Amino acid sequence: MSVSLDDLAALVGGRVHGDGLTLLTGAATIRDAQPGDITLADSPKFLGLLATCRASAVVMPVGLGDADRPTILADNVHDAFARIVQFFRPQRAAGPTGVSPRATISPTARLAEGVTVQAGATIADDVEIGEGTVVYSGVHILSGCRIGPNCTIFPNAVLYENTRVGARVIIHAGAVLGAYGFGYATKGGRHLLSPQLGYVELQADVEIGAGTTVDRGTYGATLIGEGTKIDNQVMIAHNCRIGRHNMICSQVGIAGSCTTGDYVVMAGQVGVRDHVNVGDRAVVGAKSGVMCDLQPAQQYLGAPAVVERDEMRLVASLHKLPELRKEVRDLRRQLETVLAARADQAKGATKEDAA
Amino acid sequence: MSVSLDDLAALVGGRVHGDGLTLLTGAATIRDAQPGDITLADSPKFLGLLATCRASAVVMPVGLGDADRPTILADNVHDAFARIVQFFRPQRAAGPTGVSPRATISPTARLAEGVTVQAGATIADDVEIGEGTVVYSGVHILSGCRIGPNCTIFPNAVLYENTRVGARVIIHAGAVLGAYGFGYATKGGRHLLSPQLGYVELQADVEIGAGTTVDRGTYGATLIGEGTKIDNQVMIAHNCRIGRHNMICSQVGIAGSCTTGDYVVMAGQVGVRDHVNVGDRAVVGAKSGVMCDLQPAQQYLGAPAVVERDEMRLVASLHKLPELRKEVRDLRRQLETVLAARADQAKGATKEDAA
Amino acid sequence: MSVSLDDLAALVGGRVHGDGLTLLTGAATIRDAQPGDITLADSPKFLGLLATCRASAVVMPVGLGDADRPTILADNVHDAFARIVQFFRPQRAAGPTGVSPRATISPTARLAEGVTVQAGATIADDVEIGEGTVVYSGVHILSGCRIGPNCTIFPNAVLYENTRVGARVIIHAGAVLGAYGFGYATKGGRHLLSPQLGYVELQADVEIGAGTTVDRGTYGATLIGEGTKIDNQVMIAHNCRIGRHNMICSQVGIAGSCTTGDYVVMAGQVGVRDHVNVGDRAVVGAKSGVMCDLQPAQQYLGAPAVVERDEMRLVASLHKLPELRKEVRDLRRQLETVLAARADQAKGATKEDAA
Repeated sequence: MSVSLDDLAALVGGRVHGDGLTLLTGAATIRDAQPGDITLADSPKFLGLLATCRASAVVMPVGLGDADRPTILADNVHDAFARIVQFFRPQRAAGPTGVSPRATISPTARLAEGVTVQAGATIADDVEIGEGTVVYSGVHILSGCRIGPNCTIFPNAVLYENTRVGARVIIHAGAVLGAYGFGYATKGGRHLLSPQLGYVELQADVEIGAGTTVDRGTYGATLIGEGTKIDNQVMIAHNCRIGRHNMICSQVGIAGSCTTGDYVVMAGQVGVRDHVNVGDRAVVGAKSGVMCDLQPAQQYLGAPAVVERDEMRLVASLHKLPELRKEVRDLRRQLETVLAARADQAKGATKEDAA
Repeated sequence: MSVSLDDLAALVGGRVHGDGLTLLTGAATIRDAQPGDITLADSPKFLGLLATCRASAVVMPVGLGDADRPTILADNVHDAFARIVQFFRPQRAAGPTGVSPRATISPTARLAEGVTVQAGATIADDVEIGEGTVVYSGVHILSGCRIGPNCTIFPNAVLYENTRVGARVIIHAGAVLGAYGFGYATKGGRHLLSPQLGYVELQADVEIGAGTTVDRGTYGATLIGEGTKIDNQVMIAHNCRIGRHNMICSQVGIAGSCTTGDYVVMAGQVGVRDHVNVGDRAVVGAKSGVMCDLQPAQQYLGAPAVVERDEMRLVASLHKLPELRKEVRDLRRQLETVLAARADQAKGATKEDAA
Repeated sequence: MSVSLDDLAALVGGRVHGDGLTLLTGAATIRDAQPGDITLADSPKFLGLLATCRASAVVMPVGLGDADRPTILADNVHDAFARIVQFFRPQRAAGPTGVSPRATISPTARLAEGVTVQAGATIADDVEIGEGTVVYSGVHILSGCRIGPNCTIFPNAVLYENTRVGARVIIHAGAVLGAYGFGYATKGGRHLLSPQLGYVELQADVEIGAGTTVDRGTYGATLIGEGTKIDNQVMIAHNCRIGRHNMICSQVGIAGSCTTGDYVVMAGQVGVRDHVNVGDRAVVGAKSGVMCDLQPAQQYLGAPAVVERDEMRLVASLHKLPELRKEVRDLRRQLETVLAARADQAKGATKEDAA
């Protein structure tokens, strides 16, 4: 399949610069593009890479500069390039729609119109699933779950009993919602599991990454607020209440009973100890270890996490520490010279006195 | 369903204070409770929160103080409240019991009485499963595994060949036992997988969190000792021998061939390098990086991990480092004044001598 | 089953020292071995442990020393012991071969000769699978994937649409390839998912650990180069290009758009921020946090990661920090003595002048 640059420009509402009759057969990023491909240069950095790129054409934002080959100029290059990529490699449908005869669905489950359940998924007793929701193969939804409309639940996600999921939620492969919290009472040298009677609640527009785990509350909900996005391999422990529109990056771990406000951001591999409260719009840098409550709209970093500029100052001081030790040794030497001189002087004076 | 406070008190063996005829329709934690609910206040902190809580009644320990509403006084409030929660929201059964015709079970597998295997689970050749064990949907148990009685294996857990599991073990969703260890010999620039002939052994009463992975031993067992509890997303590498009654929190990673004693505790995101031995009852603080053997009954912290009070002292010193640098600059300045004065004096003395 | 030491030696091409008629019934590592077992002592450390080991015989390398019991001397003890372990406990086959009638396979999928697909696996539209590849139970391969020959895909791995997998790749249980990247544009206070049009490509001889996640590229590939080995619970974010023959240990997280050269090594729990380039043969120590580009063939450590010997020097300085603070206090005290003496002297001089 080949298409002219003019036709692609018309598709995305862009303006052509150079030969509009250039024929294109694919779209690829600047490092992968081959002759026949159209590529994307969205920043000055990429203009430099163009020199060695073999693409036959390029999509660029208006005002970035002159390209060395036929160009589509677009106001929103990412929208434009995304549409071109999809033109050449249409996004695949979820596969068969409707309820597969190879899915196992309890007679007491209630599925709305237009629900898809693929082969090998299981839906237990008294589960409700809203209109348009897609349940992929290998998903297991245990009894009493309530799933809203237009959700996507990718293969092998597991929802333990009574999980509540709002509208338009996306749950990626292998995520586990509602496993038991890590709470034990130790009696006679044995750890006894405490009550595990709660559940997980995801509000509308939440997204849960692949392999992420959210444990159930002890008695009530572990809550993920509306619009919050959680990356892969994140751990949210029992009884946490995560606010709305948070961004929680990969491999973050939040211990039991924490709360976060709205628009909180946590970078990769952050750890938060139990019972900590994080204020609205707080930002926690990568690998930080949060040991106490965080103020709203502040940036934090380090383990233990402190205000970011303090941590930067600490790290700078730390890197000057070998130099500081040398300086202190030097001071010691000079001071000893002074002290020795004074001792000599004193001895001299004593001699003089004696004289 | 509504029930009187008197009846709930009788159910849990508690004593009523206030109006025993108060009618209740649910149980919820102090932040979620609505009129009609009974809630829990187990510490002075929660007494304060009661003021703004809309619950119609409360469960409290004897001696905590006076509540502002009808109360059940109980000796063990958590037992009491757990029973009340279960009264209103009975814990759901595992779903259908017995062996599902939609499970795939080898004819050479041996299942004891009262085993449940749900739809979509697979049990391979020569597997043995003990009485009363429940295997949820999507669990895959490869050949030669030996599973004890009264275990619970949640959906999508995977047991590679020859895994041994003791009695009453709980394995949460998505856990993987027995994948290959990360051991390679490099020959001619290629990494060649070393022998992967061992297996994983979980002793009685072990619990394994969601998404946790335990790799098989090279030749023999990777062992998890009796009663040890492992949280979500923990990684235990090949040939480790974890002791009895350990508590290993979320996102801990233990590299190959480590051993731990009994009653060891590791907090979240701890890393342990390979071939380290950890003594009985050692406690390792969150995010620590353990680089060498740890003594019994000591508390450790930091990366590299040292005795906790030393790490605390280091962190305190570190936070005073910018101040220390200022102090050293100040000393330098003052010392230079002294040195300059001495130089002047010396020059003066020389002049005097000269005179 | 019992076999003589002579026969085992013949099997592995080793030389017998001691009683070749010793009968053996199993093989076990030095800590587990019982009478009747043959064990392995591959280093001087293990010679010491032999004293308390109950094994009836031992495999040792030529030149390690004299054992206290019947011995097989071998040039490559690990090859020899691996063959002995397999003699006593033959590695189990993958289970039934061929395509299970309980697998769900799209009529548009193309499976080569000798492909195995077990019960409960699903293969979507337009998937291609090469000769000799084994797809275990519960694996889900979404539409458009291309899988090479002689791969092994363990239970419950998930390959999102268009994933490309080279020859001889091993993917362990619960791994997820091709979930959406964590990329959002925030408009009007809501996080909107950016285009997720790319895919994951694993080149030949790659191995992917249990629970590891590799996200798809935005428009093109997230690439794992030939021969690279990735351990359990590793996170590789969207648009990364990992080089050839890397070794990436457990719980490492690499953020979006990073590149690594060939033969890079990352130890456990390393984090790498987005858009970082790591040179060929760079080695990054455990728990490091990589914040900027790394040079080839250097060793790095720390968070932020610096050249390893600098980090070692920093840590050493840090551990002497409390001592340094004491030294500075001491200098201050002595300097103040000097200053006080000068002040007295000056006062004296003034008095003298006045006199």
